[in-house]
Amino acid sequence: MSRNSSSGYDRLITVFSPEGRLYQIEYAFKAVKAAGITTVGVRGADSVCIVTQKKVAQGHSQDKLLDPSSVTHMYRVTETIGCVQTGHQADARAQIQRVRQEAAQFRYKYGYDMPPEVLAKRVADMNQVYTQHAGMRPYGVTMMLCGMDDEKGPQLFMCDPAGHYLGYKAVAAGQKDLEAKNMLEKKLKNSPTLSYDETIQMAITVLQSVLSADFKCSDIEVGVVNKDNKGRFRQLDEAEIERHLVAISERD
Amino acid sequence: MSRNSSSGYDRLITVFSPEGRLYQIEYAFKAVKAAGITTVGVRGADSVCIVTQKKVAQGHSQDKLLDPSSVTHMYRVTETIGCVQTGHQADARAQIQRVRQEAAQFRYKYGYDMPPEVLAKRVADMNQVYTQHAGMRPYGVTMMLCGMDDEKGPQLFMCDPAGHYLGYKAVAAGQKDLEAKNMLEKKLKNSPTLSYDETIQMAITVLQSVLSADFKCSDIEVGVVNKDNKGRFRQLDEAEIERHLVAISERD
Amino acid sequence: MSRNSSSGYDRLITVFSPEGRLYQIEYAFKAVKAAGITTVGVRGADSVCIVTQKKVAQGHSQDKLLDPSSVTHMYRVTETIGCVQTGHQADARAQIQRVRQEAAQFRYKYGYDMPPEVLAKRVADMNQVYTQHAGMRPYGVTMMLCGMDDEKGPQLFMCDPAGHYLGYKAVAAGQKDLEAKNMLEKKLKNSPTLSYDETIQMAITVLQSVLSADFKCSDIEVGVVNKDNKGRFRQLDEAEIERHLVAISERD
Amino acid sequence: MSRNSSSGYDRLITVFSPEGRLYQIEYAFKAVKAAGITTVGVRGADSVCIVTQKKVAQGHSQDKLLDPSSVTHMYRVTETIGCVQTGHQADARAQIQRVRQEAAQFRYKYGYDMPPEVLAKRVADMNQVYTQHAGMRPYGVTMMLCGMDDEKGPQLFMCDPAGHYLGYKAVAAGQKDLEAKNMLEKKLKNSPTLSYDETIQMAITVLQSVLSADFKCSDIEVGVVNKDNKGRFRQLDEAEIERHLVAISERD
Amino acid sequence: MSRNSSSGYDRLITVFSPEGRLYQIEYAFKAVKAAGITTVGVRGADSVCIVTQKKVAQGHSQDKLLDPSSVTHMYRVTETIGCVQTGHQADARAQIQRVRQEAAQFRYKYGYDMPPEVLAKRVADMNQVYTQHAGMRPYGVTMMLCGMDDEKGPQLFMCDPAGHYLGYKAVAAGQKDLEAKNMLEKKLKNSPTLSYDETIQMAITVLQSVLSADFKCSDIEVGVVNKDNKGRFRQLDEAEIERHLVAISERD
Amino acid sequence: MSRNSSSGYDRLITVFSPEGRLYQIEYAFKAVKAAGITTVGVRGADSVCIVTQKKVAQGHSQDKLLDPSSVTHMYRVTETIGCVQTGHQADARAQIQRVRQEAAQFRYKYGYDMPPEVLAKRVADMNQVYTQHAGMRPYGVTMMLCGMDDEKGPQLFMCDPAGHYLGYKAVAAGQKDLEAKNMLEKKLKNSPTLSYDETIQMAITVLQSVLSADFKCSDIEVGVVNKDNKGRFRQLDEAEIERHLVAISERD
Amino acid sequence: MSRNSSSGYDRLITVFSPEGRLYQIEYAFKAVKAAGITTVGVRGADSVCIVTQKKVAQGHSQDKLLDPSSVTHMYRVTETIGCVQTGHQADARAQIQRVRQEAAQFRYKYGYDMPPEVLAKRVADMNQVYTQHAGMRPYGVTMMLCGMDDEKGPQLFMCDPAGHYLGYKAVAAGQKDLEAKNMLEKKLKNSPTLSYDETIQMAITVLQSVLSADFKCSDIEVGVVNKDNKGRFRQLDEAEIERHLVAISERD
Repeated sequence: MSRNSSSGYDRLITVFSPEGRLYQIEYAFKAVKAAGITTVGVRGADSVCIVTQKKVAQGHSQDKLLDPSSVTHMYRVTETIGCVQTGHQADARAQIQRVRQEAAQFRYKYGYDMPPEVLAKRVADMNQVYTQHAGMRPYGVTMMLCGMDDEKGPQLFMCDPAGHYLGYKAVAAGQKDLEAKNMLEKKLKNSPTLSYDETIQMAITVLQSVLSADFKCSDIEVGVVNKDNKGRFRQLDEAEIERHLVAISERD
Repeated sequence: MSRNSSSGYDRLITVFSPEGRLYQIEYAFKAVKAAGITTVGVRGADSVCIVTQKKVAQGHSQDKLLDPSSVTHMYRVTETIGCVQTGHQADARAQIQRVRQEAAQFRYKYGYDMPPEVLAKRVADMNQVYTQHAGMRPYGVTMMLCGMDDEKGPQLFMCDPAGHYLGYKAVAAGQKDLEAKNMLEKKLKNSPTLSYDETIQMAITVLQSVLSADFKCSDIEVGVVNKDNKGRFRQLDEAEIERHLVAISERD
Repeated sequence: MSRNSSSGYDRLITVFSPEGRLYQIEYAFKAVKAAGITTVGVRGADSVCIVTQKKVAQGHSQDKLLDPSSVTHMYRVTETIGCVQTGHQADARAQIQRVRQEAAQFRYKYGYDMPPEVLAKRVADMNQVYTQHAGMRPYGVTMMLCGMDDEKGPQLFMCDPAGHYLGYKAVAAGQKDLEAKNMLEKKLKNSPTLSYDETIQMAITVLQSVLSADFKCSDIEVGVVNKDNKGRFRQLDEAEIERHLVAISERD
Repeated sequence: MSRNSSSGYDRLITVFSPEGRLYQIEYAFKAVKAAGITTVGVRGADSVCIVTQKKVAQGHSQDKLLDPSSVTHMYRVTETIGCVQTGHQADARAQIQRVRQEAAQFRYKYGYDMPPEVLAKRVADMNQVYTQHAGMRPYGVTMMLCGMDDEKGPQLFMCDPAGHYLGYKAVAAGQKDLEAKNMLEKKLKNSPTLSYDETIQMAITVLQSVLSADFKCSDIEVGVVNKDNKGRFRQLDEAEIERHLVAISERD
Repeated sequence: MSRNSSSGYDRLITVFSPEGRLYQIEYAFKAVKAAGITTVGVRGADSVCIVTQKKVAQGHSQDKLLDPSSVTHMYRVTETIGCVQTGHQADARAQIQRVRQEAAQFRYKYGYDMPPEVLAKRVADMNQVYTQHAGMRPYGVTMMLCGMDDEKGPQLFMCDPAGHYLGYKAVAAGQKDLEAKNMLEKKLKNSPTLSYDETIQMAITVLQSVLSADFKCSDIEVGVVNKDNKGRFRQLDEAEIERHLVAISERD
Repeated sequence: MSRNSSSGYDRLITVFSPEGRLYQIEYAFKAVKAAGITTVGVRGADSVCIVTQKKVAQGHSQDKLLDPSSVTHMYRVTETIGCVQTGHQADARAQIQRVRQEAAQFRYKYGYDMPPEVLAKRVADMNQVYTQHAGMRPYGVTMMLCGMDDEKGPQLFMCDPAGHYLGYKAVAAGQKDLEAKNMLEKKLKNSPTLSYDETIQMAITVLQSVLSADFKCSDIEVGVVNKDNKGRFRQLDEAEIERHLVAISERD
Repeated sequence: MSRNSSSGYDRLITVFSPEGRLYQIEYAFKAVKAAGITTVGVRGADSVCIVTQKKVAQGHSQDKLLDPSSVTHMYRVTETIGCVQTGHQADARAQIQRVRQEAAQFRYKYGYDMPPEVLAKRVADMNQVYTQHAGMRPYGVTMMLCGMDDEKGPQLFMCDPAGHYLGYKAVAAGQKDLEAKNMLEKKLKNSPTLSYDETIQMAITVLQSVLSADFKCSDIEVGVVNKDNKGRFRQLDEAEIERHLVAISERD
């Protein structure tokens, strides 16, 4: 689209362009990609795995003196739900805070944990509001949620700045999302049943390929929800990641 | 109309253009079409059927790894009223939430279910407000409502972003609405009395024709309200849809 | 008036142009005409009759599958007062709702029905407010009110988007209002005393002439207030309309 | 003044132009004249008379089917104070409503009727506020007030959109105000003592002259306050007006 | 200053121009002059006198039929403080009202009359607020205050639209303020001790000179505060003014 | 900087320019200088002295009839803290009022006088707020504060429109601040220990030099805080100023 | 980036540019550098040290008469946490005030001191809010926090105007941050274990090098947190700084 045809419609979130578009939302999607991080999520038979790059977003110097423990895009929301935020990290932190509150209030009110889909819907609802009212901009961040539903088993959702949420068997977000999605599609064409280890290694492999990188265990963050572990969300430690990286390189 | 003559009047929802037009509403209608989904509704003698495409709106990659159970544009509002939302899905979800609240409050206050027309009017009223006040944009979504009125029998309404609602014998919304409406008009010229099965198959056939598609049972969502079923709104499961698709292809 | 001389003054409702004009109000009058509906009202000796076209406003496809019972521009406000709304129908519905509330509160507070003129004044007052304050646009609709005043007999008022209301012996609104008013003026030049049937047929005839149409009974809506009927407002059913259409065609 | 030199200063009511002018107020005065109505007020020894044209404001078709009883620019504010509103009639009605409230509250609070000057001051104060605060436009209407002060006798005030009020021996407002004021000045140069009849006929004569019209009794509205009538404000009925018109024509 | 260099900075009261100027305030001063009235104040040994022209502000037709008793720019604030307002009279009235409230509350709270300087400071404070906050314009009026301070004797203050207040031995405001100030300076160069009569006649003489006018007693308003009169503020009646005018002309 | 590169960024206080500048603050500093007043402050061993010109700010006619007692830029804040305001005097008065309130509340709350530095910080904080929020402009005034700290001895602070405050041994503000600061630097290069009289005469001398003026005792205001006087802030009377002026001229 | 491509998107904090950028945040980073101060922080084995230049920000004359005790960019937040603010000092002071409140409330609520990371997160959250809502600008300041975590030992965080916070082994901010970071990276390549003295001298050396300066003990501010000192934050006095400067110069 040429710049001219958008002039004026893209500075006020509350109006449609003559083609029925909401430009600010489209720009927010650009902000997600501009951060330069890629994230991959894969759903296995009894587990879900989300993998992202452990580095600060583009625009910040990739400082070697950074304390690695302070760089994270992966958050635990409840005991059983985890998420990766891809995009503008300051927005991400603001969002995760509200999401945790919502989850805690749900638990308090109803006595059981918020199911992953209900949470994904809630996130999307909050995002939609920012696209319809004047005076605020949408969040420049995409949230990938994983969790275990008591009835439906492992679940993987993605909530975007426009206020949509959708469930996926496997999905990718951020700078190289298209490449990663294509690769996932090919690999999962026959809907194979992925074991716990296969799920994790599938996610890592795809991320490694689209980035043409050779990961060290400190380069990535890996979050999993596993049925065997009572559906708890946990992040793998470096030793576990190392184990999977070795397995991948040996397999190749 | 040339772009020039609208300059300025289309960025503020609250003003009329010199021709008496409200541009933002017209653009919202474009947003409905831009989503790339088509929906068809048909009213039979004792039943109503609404059919829509089960896929994510345009602009989103048509991801093969999507969890199909998370893609839906069809919602139950009350026991006896269902609806399809065509257009910007994030707006759709925000709207359906308010509509369900309204219906629940009505039931609580008056002790019986909100009649379909009252609900359609309420939706239209909420939409009108967004077209007159500053600081908000209209919803980019069209709601097709079906339900059973105790006195008038099966009913089919459509509520648009401008705040109108109208009852129909058969209607279509979204990308190919004009083609679908033309086809419906031809087929229903003689106001035939449609049975439960005929109603459903009419809706599916028309949608299939205008999209030049050959549906699989997972490609569409079908919602029905049927007098025999005490007027309950329910969505057909894949087996039922399959049965109708087979009947249609055999009939041709 | 050339476009240039209005530049800027017509986008903000709250300001006068250098000639002392309020452009938004003028554009709202255009919106009334743009709807493409014409309405005629005639006051007889002991009755008033309002007639309008029963079709959806321009800009909407004139769908043959529309449920005719859901298309109406005529509303009962109280037992004894009815009205036709000509123009932007979503605004019309929002307005009629507020008007009914006002009438109900009046009845509750004072113990008798709101006289037609008081109601017309109230409508005009609400409209004026929308022309003086920032942040809202005027309603794009003209309301024709008919009723029976205990002392003054049958009454016919028209309230416009600018906040004026005026009483009439006969009046027209909408797309062909000028033609209709001219015709009415000629026919009523000698201030004839119209009987109940003459009143209705005068209104229908004029509408039929200016539209160069040959009405079927389902093409129009006819509302009457008649002294014999205790001043109750009621809409004629199709059989009654048919009777008048036949009488008209026989008379010609 | 050329259009260019006002660019920008005349669209925001709250700012002075570089010459220290408030353009919106000047435009509001234009709106008063644009309505095309002229009003004349004359103060006699023991009476005051206000006369205005009984027709709808310019811009409205001068409909012959108008119910003359619904066209009025003259209002009773209290038992003893009447007024004529010249200009934008919808604004006029909004203003008269607030003025009556003020007068009623005064009576309630203090136990006696608001003196005419206090009322005129109150009207001017309300008008001033609209010229200093953002978000509203000034009223496009001039109010001529007449009443009887217990001590000062008959009084005649005029309140304009800028928030001024002034007392007069005789005054005119609206389209032909300058011509009328000139004529009044000439006729009253010697400060004659006008009787009740002379006061009324002076006002009518001047209005008739500047409009080059030959009034019928239904063409004008005449309001008087007379000491003999305990200072009550009342409008003359058609017979009385007729009597004065005859007297005038006979005198010429 | 050329028009170009102010573009934009002069339409929003809350911003400084690149040269550190606040244009709206400068324009408000223009509005003061534009009214076409001149006012003179002189402080004597035991008295203060303020004199102003008794006519309506420019822009209003200098109507000969005006009731002179309704034209005034001089107001009593408290028993002992009077003031003249020069400039936009509608603003003047709004301001005097607030000032009287302040003075009344002070008296109520502290049990003695507000000293003139405290009042002048209060007026200036209210004016300053209008120059710093968005959404309002400054008052287009200058207030000259005179009063008797228990300790400091007669006092004369001037409060301008910018929010300044200053005390003076003699001062002028309005259209011909510069000429009047120059003349006052010359006449008071040797700081003569002015008696009550000299004070009044000095003020009238200066006003008469700069306007090249030959006043009749109805052309001016004269307010005085005199120690002999217990410091009460009062306006001279026509006879008294006449006496002074005669004295002046005899002296020349 | 050329005018072009600031276009737009300098009219809204809340935004940074592309170079990271806040233009409105820079313009406010211009307003300080534009007033045409210069102020000097000097800190001695046991005393502080602030000296400013006793005349009205530029833009006001330097009226010879001004009551000199009403012209002041020097204010006592508490018993022990005084200040001079240089710049837009209406803003100065608004600020001093708030500052006094703060100081009074502090004394009431904590039982001892606000130390000078705490007060300076508070002033700076209030100024910062006006530079970050929309809808207000910064104060166009610089405040020089002097006082005695129980522990640190004599103190001299300056608070500017940007929200900074800094302590000084000697400082200048206003039109000729740079010249004065240079001269002070030279004279105080060797950090001499200034006695009470030396402190005052240093400040007066510097001001006299940069203005190339020969002060009369009524041309300046001199405020001092002296340890011997229990740290009370007081303004010198004309006799005292005269004594210092004589001493200075004799010394030269 | 060329100026043209940002036109309009950079004046309203709440909108994304077409490339997904938030210009106001980028400009705020420029404001941080524009202040002309550089800051360095280094984390040792059991201690953290932050060093900054003790001079006023650029744009202020580097006044030699400044009281050095009033120039500081280093603040104690709690007993155990200190910080340096680099950038617009008026914003810095406003921020430190809110941060101290937060820390005090935490202590009051939970009974123990706020851990450094929690505080860093809180600062970042407050900053994020200023980047999403209309009507405010972001703070033009970067906060470097140092403290001792009970479990993780010494910690060093940096919070920027965009709302990010990150932990570091060593970091720099302000005008010469890139040079300083490069030097730190080289010096710390082998992750040496730094003793208390080495930590301080590393920070000072790096700052001295990038500024090509030869510090006197009054030129810099040095803050440390040391395990031996129970993790208390304290600023070194001039003697201590002198000791380190001597050690550095002797070592070279």
